[in-house]
Amino acid sequence: MAPFIYILGMASTFGKLFSVSTWGESHGPAVGAVLDGCPAGIPLCEKDVQEFLDRRRPGQGKMTTARNEKDQVKILSGVFEGKTTGTPISFVVFNEDQHSNDYANIEKWYRPGHADLCYDLKYGFRDYRGGGRSSARETIGRVCAGAVAQKFLKQVAGTEFIAWVDSIGKVDCPAVDAETISREQVEASPVRCPVAAASAQMEAEVLAAKTAGDSVGGTVRLVVRNVPAALGEPVFDRLDALLAQAMLSIPACKGFEVGSGFAGSRMHGSEHNDEIFFDGKAYHTRTNNAGGIVGGISNGESILCRMAFKPTATISQPQKTAGRGGENGELAAKGRHDPCVAVRAPVIVESMAALVLADLYLQQLRQK
Amino acid sequence: MAPFIYILGMASTFGKLFSVSTWGESHGPAVGAVLDGCPAGIPLCEKDVQEFLDRRRPGQGKMTTARNEKDQVKILSGVFEGKTTGTPISFVVFNEDQHSNDYANIEKWYRPGHADLCYDLKYGFRDYRGGGRSSARETIGRVCAGAVAQKFLKQVAGTEFIAWVDSIGKVDCPAVDAETISREQVEASPVRCPVAAASAQMEAEVLAAKTAGDSVGGTVRLVVRNVPAALGEPVFDRLDALLAQAMLSIPACKGFEVGSGFAGSRMHGSEHNDEIFFDGKAYHTRTNNAGGIVGGISNGESILCRMAFKPTATISQPQKTAGRGGENGELAAKGRHDPCVAVRAPVIVESMAALVLADLYLQQLRQK
Amino acid sequence: MAPFIYILGMASTFGKLFSVSTWGESHGPAVGAVLDGCPAGIPLCEKDVQEFLDRRRPGQGKMTTARNEKDQVKILSGVFEGKTTGTPISFVVFNEDQHSNDYANIEKWYRPGHADLCYDLKYGFRDYRGGGRSSARETIGRVCAGAVAQKFLKQVAGTEFIAWVDSIGKVDCPAVDAETISREQVEASPVRCPVAAASAQMEAEVLAAKTAGDSVGGTVRLVVRNVPAALGEPVFDRLDALLAQAMLSIPACKGFEVGSGFAGSRMHGSEHNDEIFFDGKAYHTRTNNAGGIVGGISNGESILCRMAFKPTATISQPQKTAGRGGENGELAAKGRHDPCVAVRAPVIVESMAALVLADLYLQQLRQK
Amino acid sequence: MAPFIYILGMASTFGKLFSVSTWGESHGPAVGAVLDGCPAGIPLCEKDVQEFLDRRRPGQGKMTTARNEKDQVKILSGVFEGKTTGTPISFVVFNEDQHSNDYANIEKWYRPGHADLCYDLKYGFRDYRGGGRSSARETIGRVCAGAVAQKFLKQVAGTEFIAWVDSIGKVDCPAVDAETISREQVEASPVRCPVAAASAQMEAEVLAAKTAGDSVGGTVRLVVRNVPAALGEPVFDRLDALLAQAMLSIPACKGFEVGSGFAGSRMHGSEHNDEIFFDGKAYHTRTNNAGGIVGGISNGESILCRMAFKPTATISQPQKTAGRGGENGELAAKGRHDPCVAVRAPVIVESMAALVLADLYLQQLRQK
Repeated sequence: MAPFIYILGMASTFGKLFSVSTWGESHGPAVGAVLDGCPAGIPLCEKDVQEFLDRRRPGQGKMTTARNEKDQVKILSGVFEGKTTGTPISFVVFNEDQHSNDYANIEKWYRPGHADLCYDLKYGFRDYRGGGRSSARETIGRVCAGAVAQKFLKQVAGTEFIAWVDSIGKVDCPAVDAETISREQVEASPVRCPVAAASAQMEAEVLAAKTAGDSVGGTVRLVVRNVPAALGEPVFDRLDALLAQAMLSIPACKGFEVGSGFAGSRMHGSEHNDEIFFDGKAYHTRTNNAGGIVGGISNGESILCRMAFKPTATISQPQKTAGRGGENGELAAKGRHDPCVAVRAPVIVESMAALVLADLYLQQLRQK
Repeated sequence: MAPFIYILGMASTFGKLFSVSTWGESHGPAVGAVLDGCPAGIPLCEKDVQEFLDRRRPGQGKMTTARNEKDQVKILSGVFEGKTTGTPISFVVFNEDQHSNDYANIEKWYRPGHADLCYDLKYGFRDYRGGGRSSARETIGRVCAGAVAQKFLKQVAGTEFIAWVDSIGKVDCPAVDAETISREQVEASPVRCPVAAASAQMEAEVLAAKTAGDSVGGTVRLVVRNVPAALGEPVFDRLDALLAQAMLSIPACKGFEVGSGFAGSRMHGSEHNDEIFFDGKAYHTRTNNAGGIVGGISNGESILCRMAFKPTATISQPQKTAGRGGENGELAAKGRHDPCVAVRAPVIVESMAALVLADLYLQQLRQK
Repeated sequence: MAPFIYILGMASTFGKLFSVSTWGESHGPAVGAVLDGCPAGIPLCEKDVQEFLDRRRPGQGKMTTARNEKDQVKILSGVFEGKTTGTPISFVVFNEDQHSNDYANIEKWYRPGHADLCYDLKYGFRDYRGGGRSSARETIGRVCAGAVAQKFLKQVAGTEFIAWVDSIGKVDCPAVDAETISREQVEASPVRCPVAAASAQMEAEVLAAKTAGDSVGGTVRLVVRNVPAALGEPVFDRLDALLAQAMLSIPACKGFEVGSGFAGSRMHGSEHNDEIFFDGKAYHTRTNNAGGIVGGISNGESILCRMAFKPTATISQPQKTAGRGGENGELAAKGRHDPCVAVRAPVIVESMAALVLADLYLQQLRQK
Repeated sequence: MAPFIYILGMASTFGKLFSVSTWGESHGPAVGAVLDGCPAGIPLCEKDVQEFLDRRRPGQGKMTTARNEKDQVKILSGVFEGKTTGTPISFVVFNEDQHSNDYANIEKWYRPGHADLCYDLKYGFRDYRGGGRSSARETIGRVCAGAVAQKFLKQVAGTEFIAWVDSIGKVDCPAVDAETISREQVEASPVRCPVAAASAQMEAEVLAAKTAGDSVGGTVRLVVRNVPAALGEPVFDRLDALLAQAMLSIPACKGFEVGSGFAGSRMHGSEHNDEIFFDGKAYHTRTNNAGGIVGGISNGESILCRMAFKPTATISQPQKTAGRGGENGELAAKGRHDPCVAVRAPVIVESMAALVLADLYLQQLRQK
């Protein structure tokens, strides 16, 4: 590899006003985030955040990686007498259950489908232990900040975020009513699919992949209810554009659609356009092909979107690949990995959506 | 509607270092853009930009809107003796063929599927003539800046951007070889579909919709060839995440996928992972399910992505809707509109992709 | 000079929410600016802006450069039916009275004290005609946007910006009452010094320098009255820190102080601290050593600051210098130049201050 | 006080590419910073940073506050096998010697000259313990990141930053040679003044103020040697403009000048302009009135600037002031405070300057 010196670092900051910076590697001392720009006066304690981290953390059963982390969050700044002060909120989660020696062969061989090679191309070297910064543990910081965003939007507008697994491999969840689905229904399923029959089939799909030393992909749906109208900046920072960036920034996400999405591209305008009516208090639409966003701006209807996650790159089946020195050979990866990333994705999806909406909400604040 | 005072304005700037700000309304005096952060020393003249604008401009035949604009660009700054100086480049295109009185009924009634209502919700009032800022004419500024980005990347890395129409309504283009498809093949088709038989069917689909006073959706594919490796910041500013934002920021775009995309979510890791090999000079992959991006960073393979465009919202068939005063009624829109936005989308898709890559290229510049 | 390729361009954007991008060269076709993020609903016409440009424009008499420009502004977007729409506002001023052939010797020799050499070091070449981008004509865009900022703040908070010349060379203006000084008093003086005797001495100082083929420096004071309290972000984006950046970004500005400034560094806390009292409605201070800003945040008292401007670099006296090819020699500059930049600085100072305050005002918008 | 709800938070991030976010309150569990965008491959350990923190920390003798903090830094991410990885670097310093009950009267009464009142005006309430976020402890994060910036620039360009105390109260340091002054000379003085006689007088001045329950102001000079030419973006992000922002963002800083500064405003161009010559290898100037920056861009000469610091606001002498409930009364502040902030300012000044230069250095990286 060519000698690289002084490569620029990465930009780990998201949001213009409600802005989060995440930091930390899978096998470093800790991971965390700083949330800057959070309004003052919001009730907040560590328990509020822990509840979301508990939904994200590994070691929850046969469906997820065996790495067992408590993921206990500490808030080091920005909260005083139980309320946010408007100053930056610093979150830290110390890493505990590290098996760094599992990763010796990963130091040498590039995992197919994994970021290993690209990190070396970009930075000249990498922290190869557990994927370093490309580990899913990076998303802990997003969930911490997202928990605050969800709490904030719940309080100011009653906004609710619910994400669930819509398919795993070739098993699809039948249509559910996005206006009534509850977080309890989702969390009751080990694969976070709210329909029991589909959930059982998906569990079998995940276990089969795991047993075969393989992995499997999936899709996740998100509904956001009680969305304030008028959020989104109508050219580049459209609400749906920022949601797309937010979702594709989640590891393994390869696709995004809002409302009718790809299916809508096969329709005519006369069937796709959502009829508008005024109910005496506000404007509404009879259908929601738009997914709650028109011209990049929320119209007050529920936001609906769907995300595709590829199968986990790291598998224990042997695969042909190349090594750091240019040698071509074979790798059977060790280490502990999720057989299906979609299963733990819903809380991350909710977090990223909440970060987008909180930021745009603050950009839309107005004096009446 | 509630009285709004002092609503924040929109953010019409895209890019961190290679940064474009667009401005202008459909029926104002002009539209344009300022490109800030373009490197010094790149040969540039108005003709370089005009070539791309000519692919975007309306009035090109039966497939597009009847509005006939020459869209002649003037460069007002940033170029000296035929080269960029590193100072901001100001582009202006004066509007000519305006029929503002076509839009009288749009002042009163909200078009279903259109941004009219959301602009009123956000700003309290709007420039209703031809959609104002939500008009597709806003994309002229993007194409101007994108032309410079394409020229820059072509020169420094031989990078090529080619987008084409992959489906219109229910008519699909058969698979084409993304490594060899040429811009000439695309531009030879009135609907920008490089396969003649499919192109003919798509033309019929567009004309049928137009004749019926209706519109139709479509999808667009993009390949980027000769991509420098190591582009993309690996957390929030992933290359694929920024492409997703860029694409969803194009009017009417409702979906984005990269590489295997949604289809990849149905696969196992063992079939999805792209085998890596070293050919003596560089690392490559045997397949390209990743679409050229792994961990948010380009791996040097071609970037492949696909975008969904909904049918044009404005149609002349009568539709039920509501008005500014809260009345419920019916609108049959006048004005001149594209029956299928996907037909004119390819050059805009290429422009946005080039803006993303140019910006990340500058972020990755390094001293050896 | 070392061969430079692909140097990054410049960042000509200022402000986070109320954000201006300026563009244009002294001898290009035009100069201008795009103001993005301006709230919707503010009454605005070209005349509102022209009034400020007229205070900035050259050719106003013996005190300024002989270049005679009308500097007529055109607004190309963002205003509809006499009000801002929230969309980007594009300003353009076409250049008219250009004498590009005056600058032949400047192509070859670097003017001492001027940016010529630094532009070549940075970009590898430059538009040498009249200073190109480093010309004071760049500030036209700032004044356009600043005029909107002043109008906006006047309307929402009654805020007033008044800047005046406090010294030229060794001639000082005696202390004036910042709470009562009026723009009319300032503009009545050809050197913008509100005290008649000092103004006359300053005129003589400027003319003496001009006659000698020389130039002279000066200082400018600024008061901002009716400042909303609570503006400024208390760490890096302090109100005084952003004012300092704004002022030092004006060509030829070399120093900034707020409130007691450098004199305050010689005082004790017991004499410097401003006593706080509550008058039944709001908190006030009995003195204003703070200059209206404490901890980076406005306290509601008038903002007071002072800026130092060096003498104009371009003079017609012969000076020793070096040329583009490394030769050492002598230059007697031609072209038309202000003998004292401070004389035209006040409206630019006001504009930059207004841009800072408008941006922080929007960042401080709140829901009650 | 009016009821405030949902006030925006503060922006505690500085830098575009080399970007630091600081967090933490004086009496919270910890303070720290995240440095994002630092290039990969720079040797770095905690000791490198500690050396700078030790110069900043309190409890160093009679000249500084009695608060005794070890200020031991921990690096929690971004470093692997002794080198930066290009990922965000997280620094944390736990607070130890807190006497929160000293601050009971500060909860009630606003300290004159202090940010207490402004925080309440802005956020509606504040963490009053030790000044919370407005405490000088916030600067710990700046020094951590600044240490990395200094190390980086030292390595790539041999750049050196040396700041020293130039005056305290009415005691001035005689002129020193900025080209040869060393950090050892500065640190040998308890007040960081490199001239022994002046240092002794300044010590007496500080002690006199301390004994009287008072405080005293001062000025600090900075030289940056071996500055890469061509740094600085020539409109708003001028090198001197960003230095001005950086310096004014330091608590208690009220003034900034570069090169000749305010004195230069009294000169003629013919005496102020620095003669340029080419020495066979590079361009230089015979004098340095410019302070190393022309047109906002470094010319390769040493950067020279000077900063004014007001006297510490918190003093133990009784002062008239108002309280949270609007009552007018008197406060004699307890708690531990520096009698002269200028004494501890030099390492903070160096840190902020290094952050500015590192960021602009990365913006100027180029491919040859």
